[in-house]
Amino acid sequence: MNVIRLEDKFAQFTDHWNPRVIGELNDQHIKIARVQGEFIWHNHAQEDELFMVVRGQLLIDFRDGTTAELNPGELLVVPRGTDHRPHCAAETWIMMIEPKSTVNTGDQTASERTRTQLEQI
Amino acid sequence: MNVIRLEDKFAQFTDHWNPRVIGELNDQHIKIARVQGEFIWHNHAQEDELFMVVRGQLLIDFRDGTTAELNPGELLVVPRGTDHRPHCAAETWIMMIEPKSTVNTGDQTASERTRTQLEQI
Repeated sequence: MNVIRLEDKFAQFTDHWNPRVIGELNDQHIKIARVQGEFIWHNHAQEDELFMVVRGQLLIDFRDGTTAELNPGELLVVPRGTDHRPHCAAETWIMMIEPKSTVNTGDQTASERTRTQLEQI
Repeated sequence: MNVIRLEDKFAQFTDHWNPRVIGELNDQHIKIARVQGEFIWHNHAQEDELFMVVRGQLLIDFRDGTTAELNPGELLVVPRGTDHRPHCAAETWIMMIEPKSTVNTGDQTASERTRTQLEQI
């Protein structure tokens, strides 16, 4: 049975905001990404999205003006349909679990930030 | 938006092999448990089960004679229908993600190890 070692997986790439698929369960993908700077506002109409921080600190803004602060050992589920904007000053390593159908830029028109063909590592 | 701090959640109970629900996404529960000693052989016919170790070390035996070793920062998806037996010598803190329908003892006849009404914390 294949143990997934997060540290080893993050060592396989260095670019930002480009999620890799590291596993799957129940029609969902387990993804990891290195992120730094600001992502765009978006939501996923049908998909709840789990965020976990592996290293660093992730901030997620919401339309009500609040910002969730996620540190290692903390997780957050962004419910479907909820606008959110992830950002962080320093490079941060995150893990996400969400349905296989989930596209990173959600309801937004495809842009240079959009990733539809994710590498499996 | 509600950040889930694992350390705080584990501080709310001390018993073993009694999973608590700490969140949900896409019809699945996010559960945590303190475990120590040996659990029973079982499988979940319809449900893939994600294991992550938060503290300690979890061993999971499989019928082919192999044993997966899970340390903090490592995860394992046990595919549906796969017999497995978790165990550990020292107390270990684990997180699991699996469909809401999942019962801890899987296909086995309900016993004193079975937990069907899980506390939400």
